[in-house]
Amino acid sequence: MKTSPKYVYFFGGGKADGNAAMKNLLGGKGANIAEMVKLGMPVPPGYTITTETCNEFFKNNGKHPPGLKKEANAALARVEEIMNQKFGDPKNPLLFSVRSGARASMPGMMETVLNIGLTTKTIPTLIAKTGNPRFVYDAYRRLIAMYSDVVMEKAAGIEPEEGKGIRARLEALIDKVKKKNGYQTDLDLTAEDWEGLCGQFKNTVKKVLGKPFPDDPMKQLWGSIDAVFQSWFGKRAVSYRRIEKLPDHWGTAVNVQTMVFGNMGDDCATGVAFTRNPATGDNNFYGEWLINAQGEDVVAGIRTPFAINNVSKVSSNKHLPTLEGTMPKLYKQLDRIRRKLDTHYKDMQDIEFTIQNDTLYMLQTRVGKRNGPAAIKMATDMVKQGLISKKMAVSRVRPEQLDELLHPMIDPKAEKVAKKLGGGLPAGPGGAVGKIVLTADKAEELGTKGEKVVLVREETSPEDVHGMKPAQGILTSKGGMTSHAALVARGWGKCCIVGCGDITHVDIKKKTVSFGGRVLKEGDWISMNGTKGAVYEGVLPLITTGPEKTPGFKKLMTWADQIRTLGVRTNADTPEDAKAAIALGAEGIGLTRTEHMFFGDRMWAVREMIMAEDAKGREKALRKLLPMQRKDFYGIFKVMAGRPVTIRLLDPPLHEFVPNEKPAQKEMAARLGVPVKTVTAKVDFLSEFNPMLGHRGCRLGITHSEITAMQSRAIFEAVVKCRKQKIKVSPEIMVPLVGTEAEFIDQKTIIDRVAREVMKKTKVKFKYMVGTMIEVPRAALVADQIALEAEFFSFGTNDMTQMTFGYSRDDAGTFLPDYVERKILPDDPFQSIDRDGVGELMEIGVSRGRAVRKDLKIGICGEHGGEPSSVTFCHQIGLDYVSCSPFRVPIARLAAAQAVLADQKKKK
Amino acid sequence: MKTSPKYVYFFGGGKADGNAAMKNLLGGKGANIAEMVKLGMPVPPGYTITTETCNEFFKNNGKHPPGLKKEANAALARVEEIMNQKFGDPKNPLLFSVRSGARASMPGMMETVLNIGLTTKTIPTLIAKTGNPRFVYDAYRRLIAMYSDVVMEKAAGIEPEEGKGIRARLEALIDKVKKKNGYQTDLDLTAEDWEGLCGQFKNTVKKVLGKPFPDDPMKQLWGSIDAVFQSWFGKRAVSYRRIEKLPDHWGTAVNVQTMVFGNMGDDCATGVAFTRNPATGDNNFYGEWLINAQGEDVVAGIRTPFAINNVSKVSSNKHLPTLEGTMPKLYKQLDRIRRKLDTHYKDMQDIEFTIQNDTLYMLQTRVGKRNGPAAIKMATDMVKQGLISKKMAVSRVRPEQLDELLHPMIDPKAEKVAKKLGGGLPAGPGGAVGKIVLTADKAEELGTKGEKVVLVREETSPEDVHGMKPAQGILTSKGGMTSHAALVARGWGKCCIVGCGDITHVDIKKKTVSFGGRVLKEGDWISMNGTKGAVYEGVLPLITTGPEKTPGFKKLMTWADQIRTLGVRTNADTPEDAKAAIALGAEGIGLTRTEHMFFGDRMWAVREMIMAEDAKGREKALRKLLPMQRKDFYGIFKVMAGRPVTIRLLDPPLHEFVPNEKPAQKEMAARLGVPVKTVTAKVDFLSEFNPMLGHRGCRLGITHSEITAMQSRAIFEAVVKCRKQKIKVSPEIMVPLVGTEAEFIDQKTIIDRVAREVMKKTKVKFKYMVGTMIEVPRAALVADQIALEAEFFSFGTNDMTQMTFGYSRDDAGTFLPDYVERKILPDDPFQSIDRDGVGELMEIGVSRGRAVRKDLKIGICGEHGGEPSSVTFCHQIGLDYVSCSPFRVPIARLAAAQAVLADQKKKK
Repeated sequence: MKTSPKYVYFFGGGKADGNAAMKNLLGGKGANIAEMVKLGMPVPPGYTITTETCNEFFKNNGKHPPGLKKEANAALARVEEIMNQKFGDPKNPLLFSVRSGARASMPGMMETVLNIGLTTKTIPTLIAKTGNPRFVYDAYRRLIAMYSDVVMEKAAGIEPEEGKGIRARLEALIDKVKKKNGYQTDLDLTAEDWEGLCGQFKNTVKKVLGKPFPDDPMKQLWGSIDAVFQSWFGKRAVSYRRIEKLPDHWGTAVNVQTMVFGNMGDDCATGVAFTRNPATGDNNFYGEWLINAQGEDVVAGIRTPFAINNVSKVSSNKHLPTLEGTMPKLYKQLDRIRRKLDTHYKDMQDIEFTIQNDTLYMLQTRVGKRNGPAAIKMATDMVKQGLISKKMAVSRVRPEQLDELLHPMIDPKAEKVAKKLGGGLPAGPGGAVGKIVLTADKAEELGTKGEKVVLVREETSPEDVHGMKPAQGILTSKGGMTSHAALVARGWGKCCIVGCGDITHVDIKKKTVSFGGRVLKEGDWISMNGTKGAVYEGVLPLITTGPEKTPGFKKLMTWADQIRTLGVRTNADTPEDAKAAIALGAEGIGLTRTEHMFFGDRMWAVREMIMAEDAKGREKALRKLLPMQRKDFYGIFKVMAGRPVTIRLLDPPLHEFVPNEKPAQKEMAARLGVPVKTVTAKVDFLSEFNPMLGHRGCRLGITHSEITAMQSRAIFEAVVKCRKQKIKVSPEIMVPLVGTEAEFIDQKTIIDRVAREVMKKTKVKFKYMVGTMIEVPRAALVADQIALEAEFFSFGTNDMTQMTFGYSRDDAGTFLPDYVERKILPDDPFQSIDRDGVGELMEIGVSRGRAVRKDLKIGICGEHGGEPSSVTFCHQIGLDYVSCSPFRVPIARLAAAQAVLADQKKKK
Repeated sequence: MKTSPKYVYFFGGGKADGNAAMKNLLGGKGANIAEMVKLGMPVPPGYTITTETCNEFFKNNGKHPPGLKKEANAALARVEEIMNQKFGDPKNPLLFSVRSGARASMPGMMETVLNIGLTTKTIPTLIAKTGNPRFVYDAYRRLIAMYSDVVMEKAAGIEPEEGKGIRARLEALIDKVKKKNGYQTDLDLTAEDWEGLCGQFKNTVKKVLGKPFPDDPMKQLWGSIDAVFQSWFGKRAVSYRRIEKLPDHWGTAVNVQTMVFGNMGDDCATGVAFTRNPATGDNNFYGEWLINAQGEDVVAGIRTPFAINNVSKVSSNKHLPTLEGTMPKLYKQLDRIRRKLDTHYKDMQDIEFTIQNDTLYMLQTRVGKRNGPAAIKMATDMVKQGLISKKMAVSRVRPEQLDELLHPMIDPKAEKVAKKLGGGLPAGPGGAVGKIVLTADKAEELGTKGEKVVLVREETSPEDVHGMKPAQGILTSKGGMTSHAALVARGWGKCCIVGCGDITHVDIKKKTVSFGGRVLKEGDWISMNGTKGAVYEGVLPLITTGPEKTPGFKKLMTWADQIRTLGVRTNADTPEDAKAAIALGAEGIGLTRTEHMFFGDRMWAVREMIMAEDAKGREKALRKLLPMQRKDFYGIFKVMAGRPVTIRLLDPPLHEFVPNEKPAQKEMAARLGVPVKTVTAKVDFLSEFNPMLGHRGCRLGITHSEITAMQSRAIFEAVVKCRKQKIKVSPEIMVPLVGTEAEFIDQKTIIDRVAREVMKKTKVKFKYMVGTMIEVPRAALVADQIALEAEFFSFGTNDMTQMTFGYSRDDAGTFLPDYVERKILPDDPFQSIDRDGVGELMEIGVSRGRAVRKDLKIGICGEHGGEPSSVTFCHQIGLDYVSCSPFRVPIARLAAAQAVLADQKKKK
């Protein structure tokens, strides 16, 4: 015979059947309540019906498993005994709340019913006991509204049209009374008003739903319990689980708990608090409370909550009473509980409490949310306190949170209520606030005067750089994550949003920017969240914390470095970037793009090369670039002082260096001394239908071998210069866009030849590596062929994602946000590596590459290299390093350490 | 002790050590000579030194393996005995030729030395014997020239500057004599002239190469043999083998053979012939000959060769004597040999013969080259004769040869010597000759009058179609294989070349087309080879053979169909195309593109849809398209009469339906009643950086679900119409560009819903399948996820190749031809499936797809579906069918049959 499982877990009076470890069975709420009871804390007694019961309930088509009622009744009796009250007893009635509680928090997805046990028989007693008829009828009307909505309508599967649901109908009745009496808020309603409304509520319920509101307390209780079970398969909960990929078989627990009231008079109160300050991490009790109020009043924003103590005061409540001052004894009791919870859970807790008639009750405890700086401080403080290990501290801070330290951020509270103008691709992180300017010149003019400006353009080009630097942020209506604006901004760590499709028109002449119907003028203020890609109207407050100013940052990073096995390099094109990255912990350069070095004045030599008739003419033009390139590389080598430097040969197609507009073509023709016709013809010839898939990367190096030769020569001559000055150098030359072994061999042959020539000429021997980007899908598939020749791989996951999905990043803005929102894709694959597709190709590339060359060095230099979940993936598939923009280096270091910790946890 | 291998294979006097099966050891030439000897045919005696000897030679650093000389001398003695002459004997000298002979023909890659044995001692005897001093000195100077070049210079590794080689210096001496005496050709030189030149030759050789020309016959012989060995690793031979992927370890054999001369007098002759007519396949002896001439005179084109018999006569030699008439006895002997070779080898042979003093000698036999119609006729004739099996017949015709039947072709002979203007992408097969016209109107005007025109444009658009139809061919300077011109031309089977980068300018105003410096005017004649992608100046002759006119075509195709297991479908967008394809053997439609159905008048409804503000507006516009689409599908279903029809939902991005030019935008604005500004803004909004990777395919169907719904409705309503008329239908709806399971589910949900609606409304039940293109690389990688939902796959290898390589087909013209020429790629991957990359993805897709759905139907509808080696690959990886343009259907049928035969051969 099968023993039936235990369905009901009692808690109360210092005893509990469950504990904090039983989250799967009791849900997060139930398990923590049990734990608090065990710790001797004052918790209103009650019982938790297990998640397994929920599963049984659905297995049996909505019937209770045998034994459930018996167990529940037994637990109820124990509660009655502790409370010395009886459920439904007209003389001394007990009231219950019924709440859901799943393993993971599913905020607002499931149901709650409060004040269960209020009936025509118990109400007079309660009025007599409390002397507060308004309180009692207010509670009663809440019960009727919740019950009729949750139990009688939703759980019964009734789907009324929008605005025709029972809840809306009942709300309308309240509004009628308010209107009639000229009331502003619900607080203005009198006891008589509520009493009248309770009657109207019951009539309406009966009329609309065809059934009366039950006056039987047991019917109320079980109706509510079943409704919570039903809500597990409610529409909202199911679609939430689909999105969050939570399994259906978890089920929900149901918590039946004695009601306590913070709104029964001035010896009552309610509050929410954190065991440490969630904004700074300081080890102070921090919280808000209200006297004579219900829990929801504290968070609803209608009344200004008071600070529980002086350290919790902010400008809005500094004149208002504290709990510490008002109820010093209870505050002390609460503070003791706070300390106990903080050390017991070894993490900052978010707690809810209610004081009913001078008695403190704990309603909930759970791990509290915190911002980045606070997370770091708490984690490092707790190590100092001996509460947690260094490893635990490292795992406590989410890598994304470091972004808050590295860039100014829009205050999340303000952002929640701000007026959003539109969204785009998050090209540069952090927040920015400034006046709209539409030209680079204007941006420079105002920006250098110290005014805060945001440069808004359709797109940017190298000619705009002087205006991009002094701008707070850059916003473009077109372009993708690899557009000029995005690349430049990311390098600088500057806030930038590109491809903002909500900008329907940028009118330079009229000096306006249209977001659909909303037209802003130059000089109007906007705010941007570049981490999320959102644009807001007006000025939003910014929060800034530098890593240096963040207590514990250095310590935490050192611990992370001790744990991680994955190397962290940076993408840097200038000595300045390189310096910044080293300061943030970069161990080398994983990607130096050389194309940026071809703009500015140098563009003229590039254009001369493009217009040359043959290889000789091209060589002549390239000779002008050689000394400049050499200087570029020398500068970077010097800063890197022997750390590895991966230099990618020229990647973009040549048409990026010639102008499309007639006047600029005329200027080019005049300066190079050729007919305009010739320039126009060349521009036409170079233009491409799909530049992303065009004549670029090593394809260019193969058809224009003199470019590869010049760049190699510049690198090697810079190496020699360093060597002569006793500066250590580790150059790694990277061939871009390789898809076949033959392409790589072609380029390597040139590089090796130039190396021999430079060695011979300078009589200096030096070491170097030649490797390739793996970004074309084919390259991953034939990695075993390419690795025969290549000494290192670096995954270019930006392009690989474009080609594997067939998404042009510059164009995907018209459907990708839709895809992510509708969960056709779990994430934007340009943010986080797509494991099934791109990740699969990476794994193929790693295993095939290492199959023929065991010690093949493999890294990643796409933007994914700085995204935490992608860093984890890179660690899992055995890469040697990730490379990311300087401002993401700390994020990568932390993510890499956490990947190791996750491994260790799995192995246990 | 190791027995040393046999190095030398003797042949002559009716006996031979080797035979035709020993090609690997004796080379093709040596093996066939041995076979002819065994068949009792008159072959000048000699011996073959094996390919293994060549390998030994290189293993021993250019030393002969022990025993070789002894074996060779023994064979030489047997030759002397047969000929009753002695090598180097002043009284009765024997002369030898030394020729290379590898397993596979390597035309012109290796060396030959003739007339070996001519020395100061043997020359007088030969003059006395022949009475022909001019003949002897002519032979002597040839020996000196060949020997000094091949043996003394090339094999010695001397690399002179261009034009400074010994051969060029000697030629210059001849030119001097000709100039001095006012001679036109070498034939004008007298015996004295040649004698004098022989002296000068020897002096020059000594002066330039520092060594005298050897007067020792044995030295001449072994010098020549070693030089042939050396030539195996000569520059030309090595690079030829790299290109053709032939291994180095094959080595070459050396054939040492008694010299016979066709130029010793009027009882001498030489000729080349085919055992059957290589142009028609008729079973007639066909060949050319010359009296008193050397073999090279027949092929060199200086003298007009005679026909060997009356059936071989052509206009240029119909008045000249035949061998049959001139030397009837010898002709009869030759004809007997011809019949014997033809039946013995069971294939048409290409033979060389020489008549020396009324004696016939056979010099060579090998399988003869033939054109397509001839190949078909010979193969089917030989089955009738009982010579070969049907399977053998099917394997005898190269599938590409069928192209010659299906399109007019430029005469290959004329093409060889034509003036090439440029090259481009081979977008439409066959040949075309016509006057240049630069506008569609002009093309229509002249074309409908019956004039032959070629429409030359930068690009074509749907507005040009009326001029494309009457043109013989279409030539564009821009665009790729998926450009408008290419798609339209391919559907029609019309000759078309796109992306011809050699066209530097098309000047509509001046009515000129510039190919670099060469400027042609409208009205000038050009010729095009659309199969190869080459453009020529002037009028080249065209050859046309329809499949119906080709004897044996139907029979051969029937046999092929009996053998093949792979299905063959067609890509067809209209009932006309479908009809044509059925006539050519298509078993269904593998791809109906629906985008072509959106042009013309219908474009206005499409534009209305594009300009609509919301889904409702779009639906309204789409309702106009519904009846037209329904008619489209009904027409195709009717023709296909129950054969499967795969219809692909709308694939191209919306910007293809809106005009880029201002005037057209104005027209659009006026017609749709919206401001021009709105149209321009929409066009701007829709424009994409990389349309290939943009908002198209199912991405469009997902963001604009009403398009998917309309197309599905049109399909299903057409199905119902057919069903009501008792017409069988098998519709297969194909979702394009799927990359994730969720995308497919989204579209399938819409399709299934519409199907239910149509069934409910019409009360007609019908079956249909829903499947997807596999063209995005990711789709192949996650095929196991997609196949959970999709009922069939169709590989879109055009797009898959673009994405796997990262090549935009429209842009790759600037580097891809270079890549193929430099063998960075073995083939153009858009022509022939890249097996390592794209092929690997296909295999992954097939195995993962069938892992979750065993009966998953898988086809291919990229252009590769009609390319023979790709068809073989599709067979090998287990596809169910290939689909190609109507004119490639027979090619695919034959290739599919040959793939089965290749399998059977492997298994044996």
